[in-house]
This record gives sequence, structure tokens and C-alpha cells, in this order.
Amino acid sequence: MDRPTAVNSAIRHLHSHRDQYLSDLKELLRIPSISTDPRHDNDIRSAAEWLQTYLRAMNAQNVEILDTPGKPVVTGDIPAAPDHVETAPTILLYAHYDVQPPDPVDLWESEPFEPTLRDNKLYARGSSDMKGQLMAMLGPIRSIQATSGLPVNIRILFEGEEEVGSPNLLPFIQAHPDLVAADLCLNPDTGMLGAAMPTITYALRGLAYYELWITGPATDLHSGIYGGAVHNPAQVLTEVVAAMHDVDGRVTLPGFYDNVRPMTDEERTQLARLPLTREHYLNSSGAPELFGEAGFTPVERVGARPTLEINGLYSGYIGEGSKTVLPSKAMAKISMRLVPDQDHRETERQLRKFIEDRIPDSVRFDLKKMTSGPPFLSPLDSAGNQALAEALQAVWGAEPAFKREGGSVPVATYLQEVAGVPSVLTGFGLPDDALHAPNEKVDVPTLYNGMDALVHFFFTVPDYR
Amino acid sequence: MDRPTAVNSAIRHLHSHRDQYLSDLKELLRIPSISTDPRHDNDIRSAAEWLQTYLRAMNAQNVEILDTPGKPVVTGDIPAAPDHVETAPTILLYAHYDVQPPDPVDLWESEPFEPTLRDNKLYARGSSDMKGQLMAMLGPIRSIQATSGLPVNIRILFEGEEEVGSPNLLPFIQAHPDLVAADLCLNPDTGMLGAAMPTITYALRGLAYYELWITGPATDLHSGIYGGAVHNPAQVLTEVVAAMHDVDGRVTLPGFYDNVRPMTDEERTQLARLPLTREHYLNSSGAPELFGEAGFTPVERVGARPTLEINGLYSGYIGEGSKTVLPSKAMAKISMRLVPDQDHRETERQLRKFIEDRIPDSVRFDLKKMTSGPPFLSPLDSAGNQALAEALQAVWGAEPAFKREGGSVPVATYLQEVAGVPSVLTGFGLPDDALHAPNEKVDVPTLYNGMDALVHFFFTVPDYR
Repeated sequence: MDRPTAVNSAIRHLHSHRDQYLSDLKELLRIPSISTDPRHDNDIRSAAEWLQTYLRAMNAQNVEILDTPGKPVVTGDIPAAPDHVETAPTILLYAHYDVQPPDPVDLWESEPFEPTLRDNKLYARGSSDMKGQLMAMLGPIRSIQATSGLPVNIRILFEGEEEVGSPNLLPFIQAHPDLVAADLCLNPDTGMLGAAMPTITYALRGLAYYELWITGPATDLHSGIYGGAVHNPAQVLTEVVAAMHDVDGRVTLPGFYDNVRPMTDEERTQLARLPLTREHYLNSSGAPELFGEAGFTPVERVGARPTLEINGLYSGYIGEGSKTVLPSKAMAKISMRLVPDQDHRETERQLRKFIEDRIPDSVRFDLKKMTSGPPFLSPLDSAGNQALAEALQAVWGAEPAFKREGGSVPVATYLQEVAGVPSVLTGFGLPDDALHAPNEKVDVPTLYNGMDALVHFFFTVPDYR
Repeated sequence: MDRPTAVNSAIRHLHSHRDQYLSDLKELLRIPSISTDPRHDNDIRSAAEWLQTYLRAMNAQNVEILDTPGKPVVTGDIPAAPDHVETAPTILLYAHYDVQPPDPVDLWESEPFEPTLRDNKLYARGSSDMKGQLMAMLGPIRSIQATSGLPVNIRILFEGEEEVGSPNLLPFIQAHPDLVAADLCLNPDTGMLGAAMPTITYALRGLAYYELWITGPATDLHSGIYGGAVHNPAQVLTEVVAAMHDVDGRVTLPGFYDNVRPMTDEERTQLARLPLTREHYLNSSGAPELFGEAGFTPVERVGARPTLEINGLYSGYIGEGSKTVLPSKAMAKISMRLVPDQDHRETERQLRKFIEDRIPDSVRFDLKKMTSGPPFLSPLDSAGNQALAEALQAVWGAEPAFKREGGSVPVATYLQEVAGVPSVLTGFGLPDDALHAPNEKVDVPTLYNGMDALVHFFFTVPDYR
């Protein structure tokens, strides 16, 4: 069977089995595999076991659920068809099977773990980030297996703690280089710029996430009896956190920008061509107006500039009504998005010193590191990016956009640095998929296009070795 | 029966019925009459009905549960003994039968609504604030009734929404002047400086309580995809709230201090004599160090100076772990303690303008008023204060301390201004009673002393008409 015939027969098979593949995805989405909350550890295990069963049914070999100090990793191999197996390149499929918590649950229009189709969109926590993307890799493989046979060797690396920063993935890769050895990693954990615009992400920001606790009195006090004499930890917290930005939206930690690699003029020109305009960010966010670091466009701020965000605030009484309490403690969840060549160890030192310098002797503080991951940058003309670009163009008829993205995918850096495996980063989620938010969805026609494109990719990638 | 004999026989009766009165208090404490949460409205009603039954058993007349737009008010009369009823003064007993929420519940060592005796202290929400104080008024009356007969007419005003700022009490007093008509109001809702130091409070701060909401994007966003381009409402909240104090601990709202009545030199001397030292505030709060408005001592800051406190902070993800969310909204509960001659309407205008001036066009804000009440000041040498001082001295053998207090008792101002009824403010709670906090307790021996003192008070008060 020549290649066009093989591609076409696989895509025909795929089209007649989409409903089945979507139904399989729904099964996986029903498992609330939330990694941020240890009460869901059993669900994490169930999701890993579901994947093990599914992969074995696809004739994968050596499928294992390997424990780590955190959540388990699912590994395995799907060999190429017998006439290709010796010469075919090995493609490592990366995905994470864990999801974010569904909070705030009451804002969901349907149950977060009961996948619901409305208007060709599938609503569920993890539908876009990234169980939908994971299953969009397996469907094409099943359809190629069922028709001409696989032209590549497939290797599996599905982790269960990406949403908590993949704390055990680097040690896992270091301990098991054989399980991740590959010519290229396909990682569909980044999004598209629009349904008509296939997208390859060539740079990612790193992440460093902290909890800052300020503590004052031993217990909550009556604000009438102690207010004025005892320093309010919530007041101190707001003062310290407020000082982390200046009026121009710049992060004020001394030295924070010292190692930020400047954008080239060409890169700024490229980014200016993307549809990530002021209007895009206004419309997709619903914010009344934009705000960010002076001297940069919104797309530059999100992709190429580091940021510091407050992800959560808590102190005192937050229930209904008015409780006159002087809180004993106050907490902020603070994360930094880092760009090449920032080092999270150095920015953590900067953050700690910044806080220390501002904490009066009337309170104490504790800065807890939660997660961290490095930034990533991959050449636009790498073999993987070219093979993927050809595949995406074959389906969408448009040259894919190359973009930098604000989120973090630490695994891409780990695979490159530890195992010498380059990654291609793509995905079939849309900007309004509400990742990490209520009513997360995936657009089903776009996901189906992505599956078609991956059929092409598994055939084009051997050309670019 | 002459007065010393009458007092002694009532106190003897009281001492032999203390266990019964404590058991009655426990019954009332078992009703979780939390006024800040409408889910407890049935419990509010139950507490009012329990009091109605109890008062009727004391031969009170005209006992009624009168509805308001909020929580009901319990009223009634207990006439003096027949030979006194025409000439005796009328004493209005004020108390509130509602309590604060028990949050955070997990820090209680015993159930908040299952009163528990440990080491002569009775632990329960409301034990000190103020069901214990309420029952400490009724026990003496029962014992006087059982011996010589009441030398005063008693009138009852028990409200059910003090902990939410008594929003319907002023209209109630305006609508029912006959139900509160009295020569003096006895209000035991303020505390003692120590178990050996009976205390009369002659000034109170007012309260104005708000929720400030800052909203930005329509939903929570992924902080990697939008962080840097969309303004973080939690960041804006911290900046606005942080700016409300300067480095000297002064409130920065323009005009905030304009109408603050300065303390006289004599008053500062009086306050300096109280045991409310730096060490007292450090030890009783557990704070590492004190902090407050420059130029004033801690007791002055708490009693005679206005403050602005953050009572709660909420934004984004506050559960376990690290959710990379850019929150759509952020909230602070903010309250001001006001002193004569500040007006809460004026300080609210100052607060609103302060916020308006600092809100960028990238977010919106909403300032919701929750409650407000005026400050209070009563002359040291008023008839009520003198009668009470004599009664307290009779039991403790020490001249009572006269203090200003930081908390708010709006009813005292309302009664004076609307009905011409002066108040005396006292109470038998101690500084470490943990009002509004976990493990609230009342010291039983001190409460018993207070009951003895109120026997004396009901006999001394006719002398000071």
C-alpha cells in the first residue's frame, strides 16, 4: 500500500470509528483523577489502570503502571508494523492523565465528571487539558493499526501529576532512560490560536509556585478588643504582595529581569502577526481592559516576559455576613512564570529576600515552595516541528502558526536535557476551552481534525529523521 | 426586712442555686443561635422561645417574641415587689441571644454547642459573649424574688442580631418606645480587665463593616495563558487595601481623623493606669510584637482611636496544592472601628472615594455595606455608673476600673438618643475568653461573682435616681 492510500484508508477508518473513540474518552473523563488533592489518589490509580487496560487492548507491550513517590507513570510500547519495526523512528507520546480540581463546582452547567455534549462541544474537567488530547493520539494509532499498519514505533509516557508541577517526573526520567528513549516526543499539551489555525508552540514559560503565610496572634481575635494594638496579618500580606508590582506592571523583585533573554526583532515581528491581539485577549477573557508590563504587547507579555501572579488569597472569615475577627494568619498563593534564561532557584532567592525585607517584627512568615519547572525553547526548523507542520497543513490547508506560550510543560525540558529527546508541542484545544476553570470543554470537530492530522504526522515523521 | 438582710438572704439563695442557674445557661448554649448565617434562623427562633418560656417561669408579664425584618426581639416586664412597684425605678436589661459562627470549627477542643466544663471554665460559643452574661442577670433576680422581693421594676430587651450589627434595633426602639422606657439600662456586653478587677466601660467604638469585591475577567483563567496580559483582581485588591494604612499605622483615607475627639490629658492618665499594658496585649494575643498608630499607647489605640481592619480575604484557589488560576474576582471584608465624633456615613464616603481613586479601568469594584453602628460615651459620674461601682466594690473589695473599649454596642447609643435611657456597661467576661474565636469560654467563679454583684446592684440602684 503506498503512502497516500495508507493515509486515506486510516482516515476513513478513523471517521467511521470517531463515535467509539469519543465514547472511550468519556469513560476516561468520568474518573475524577485530580492530582492536587490526595483524597483523589484512588481516582488517579483508577485512571492509570484504565489506560493500562486500553493500551493492552491496542496490543501495546510492556505496559506498566510504575510507582513514584507521587502519582504513578504509565509506560509501554506499540511496535511498528513488522516490515517497519527495525527502521522506523520511535515517537514518544507524552500526556498527563491527571486534571485540575473542578472548583468552583457551583459554576458548572453540567457535572464536571459527567461528560456532556452540547452544541458539538464536550464539557468535562480534563476534556481539553488533556484527556481529550491524550485520546486524540490513541485513536489515529488504532485506525492505522487496523488498516495499513504503523509506520513508527510508539512509546508511551503518561504521567499523573502534571497539574502539581510534575515533581517526580525528572527523577523518573533520570532513573529510566530506556523507557523514554525516542527520536522525538509528541506532546499535545499546548493549545491552538483558533479553530482554523493549527498551532505549534516553540517556547514555553517555566513555573515556580509558592504559598506565603503571614502569622500574627496565636488565634483569631475580636477586632474590637485587639484591633489597633495587634498587627493584622492580612494587612501585612496585602502590603507585601502589593509591593511585588510597580505601577507599570513590572515585577519589583530586585534582579528579576536580569537573566531574561531579550526577544529578537524578528521574533517580535512574528508574534505581532499572530491573531493574539488586544481584542482577542479582551474578548476571550471578558476583562474590562487589559493591563501588563509597560513596553510590551499582550502576546509578548504572555509568551516572552516573566510574570508573578496571585493564584489565591485567604484570611479570616470569608463566609456570609460580617464576623468582626482580627485574623491570626493570612495566605497568598503566588506563582512566577519564568522565561529563558531565568532560573527558578535564583528567583526564589529574590522572592524570599523581598519578603524578608518587608516583614515587620509584629508578624512571622513562611514561604512554602509548591512546584517548579524550567522554561523551554525549541528551534522553529527542527525536524519534529517540520514534520508536524506538514501534517497540520495537510488537514487545515493553512500553514500552522508558531507561537510562544505562557503555560509550562516541564517534561519537554527534562526530556531534552536528560534523555536527549526533542519535543514537538501542539494540541487541539481552543482559547475558550476554560482550562482550569468551570465548564471546561473541548470542541469536538476540532479534536477530530487533530486526529486526522496525527494520522498524517505518523506517516510524515519518518521523512524528517 | 432591712436591706443588708435582704441582700444577704438573696446571695445565700443564689449560692445554693448556682448549679441550677449554670445548668440553665448550658441549655441556652446548646442552641446554635448564629445570626450571621440565615441557615440558623430556626435556631434563633428556638433561642427566643427558650427565653420566653424561662421568663414566664420567672413570673414575667407581657413576654413577647416580636418580629422584625431580621431576627426577633424578646420583651417583657418583671414587676417589683408589691410594696415597691409604684416607687421603684425601672431597669431595662439588655442582652443579645445570638452568637458568632464557631468557625474555624476544627480548632475547638470540645464541641462549640455542647457546653463543657474544664478547670472551672465553661467552654461554648456564646458562653462569654453573651449568653453567660444574660443568664447572670436573671439568676440574681430569681434569688431576690425567692427571698425579699424585687426592689426594682425589670424590663427585658433581648435582641437576636447584635453579631450582625443590630440592623433592626434602632427602628424597633423608635417604633416601641413604651417597651424600652426605663430609668437605666443594664448592659453586660463589655468585659473585665482581669478576674480581680471589676470594670465599667464608659466609652465604646462604633463599627462600619463592608465587603469590597474586585472583579476582572469573566471567569477564572489559566495563569499561564493569560497571566501578564489580564490584570489580576487579587493583585489590585492587595494594592488598594495595602494603601489604606501608612508605615506609621495610620489610616490613610483623606479626612478620616478630622472628627476624632482628642483625648484629654486626664483621660490619657486614667488609661495609663489600667493593666492594659504592652505585656498584657502581647501575652493575651500571642503576637510576636505589637503594632499600631504611632504616637499612642496600645490601650489608647484600642479604646480611643479609630481603626480599619481586614476581617477576611478571599480570591482564587485556596485549597490544598497549586492551581494555576488567574482569579476572576477577589474579596476583602473590611471594617472600621469609629470613635466620637466620627460619622459612619462620612467615613463610608471617604472609603468609597479612596477605592474609586485607585481602581484601574482593567477591573471593576463593588463596595457592599454590611453593618454599621455609632460610637458611645457616657459620663464617669452618671447615676448608673455610681450605683454599679458601689455594687461591684461590695463584692470584689476593689474600686472598679473605668475603661474605654474597642468593641461596639450600638444599642447604648440608640437607647440614649431615641428613648432617653442612659446605659451602664459592664460584664463578667475576661480578656482571654476568646470571643468570636475557637474555644470561647467563661470563667465560672468570675461569673458567680458577677451574679453576687448584680444582687447588690438591684438594691443600690434606687439610691441613685
